[in-house]
Amino acid sequence: MTEGDGSQAPPPRRRGRPSRTEAQTGPDARTRILEAARTEFSERGYDKTSVRGIAKAAGVDAALVHHYFGTKDEVFAAAIELSFEPALVIPDILGSSTEGLGERLAGYFIGVWENPASRAPLLAIMRSAMTHEAAAKVLRVFVLRRLLDRIADRLDVPDAAFRVELAASHMVGIAVLRYVLQAEPLASADPQKIIAMVGPTLQRYLTEA
Amino acid sequence: MTEGDGSQAPPPRRRGRPSRTEAQTGPDARTRILEAARTEFSERGYDKTSVRGIAKAAGVDAALVHHYFGTKDEVFAAAIELSFEPALVIPDILGSSTEGLGERLAGYFIGVWENPASRAPLLAIMRSAMTHEAAAKVLRVFVLRRLLDRIADRLDVPDAAFRVELAASHMVGIAVLRYVLQAEPLASADPQKIIAMVGPTLQRYLTEA
Repeated sequence: MTEGDGSQAPPPRRRGRPSRTEAQTGPDARTRILEAARTEFSERGYDKTSVRGIAKAAGVDAALVHHYFGTKDEVFAAAIELSFEPALVIPDILGSSTEGLGERLAGYFIGVWENPASRAPLLAIMRSAMTHEAAAKVLRVFVLRRLLDRIADRLDVPDAAFRVELAASHMVGIAVLRYVLQAEPLASADPQKIIAMVGPTLQRYLTEA
Repeated sequence: MTEGDGSQAPPPRRRGRPSRTEAQTGPDARTRILEAARTEFSERGYDKTSVRGIAKAAGVDAALVHHYFGTKDEVFAAAIELSFEPALVIPDILGSSTEGLGERLAGYFIGVWENPASRAPLLAIMRSAMTHEAAAKVLRVFVLRRLLDRIADRLDVPDAAFRVELAASHMVGIAVLRYVLQAEPLASADPQKIIAMVGPTLQRYLTEA
């Protein structure tokens, strides 16, 4: 039971002055900051959230937030990535062959939105990005670009980046009509029915030259 | 030249007191109100626009705005319809056969967004609907429902309403990534290239059972 004890772990590398207490750091501080950021951005929106507010909610120094993530924009990007977990999930979605890729991608996306824990922050992110250029830029540069390129790099079609973004646009639009505007009949449709219809579309975009 | 002279036309039906001057009414007053509404909603957003402000911008009494359109929500809906002109355009899009329907629909939608005169108010509408439930409700009830039903009624596939909304979701998502977030490469893509890729998707949703 001594292995993995926080007090034995090497302290994280630091810029600037050390934080006030040892309890602030440790292996959980980064996660705590991210969860706090996600909650703050969800509840206040992009423009009213500050690094100071996130630090307070996480019970750490603002300096530690900067240390782990850099600027507010970078915390925002990391909080978005927390919902999508691209590093964990994208290899699975891509799998070993492109067969069924469209359906896996649609299933993953709908799954993230169907999960209330990730839906709330995603709603906040979309609202912020639609109304604040700074938030739009984060979504464009840090999230979309990274996420889409990671998929495009693995595809063997001409114009892969364009095609991946077209696929993404369909999923973004479903999120807008189903989860944001809650327009029927899409808002109440069975997720499996949506995935079954949209999967072949994504498959065509991503694999058919 | 006397025919169609405003002074000869029957006055519009009115609720409440008559407006101050004859110049306020006439055949152009309704159009002037709509254009003013579109500008006000575009520049101020849904929540900060008032019927009084629209009336002032159009140079008419607020009572005349209510007379022609009813509530603020109904003016908002009418201002949105002004961009899409569904009554004029939908019969052309539907045409006499479903052949090429997906491409016509994609072309129409991209065309409306490529036109700066309709793009600005549409951006404002989307931003308002994403952030204010009242505006979302207008879009959902007065615009989407009407627009989508008008198309769904003419289709011969099961689940037509669901399929039309799925098609709409794709176009809404393209608008979000291309025009709102301006995410590349979609933001700079040739409109014809987008239409050529998206047309077959819409065609499948709207026509293939």
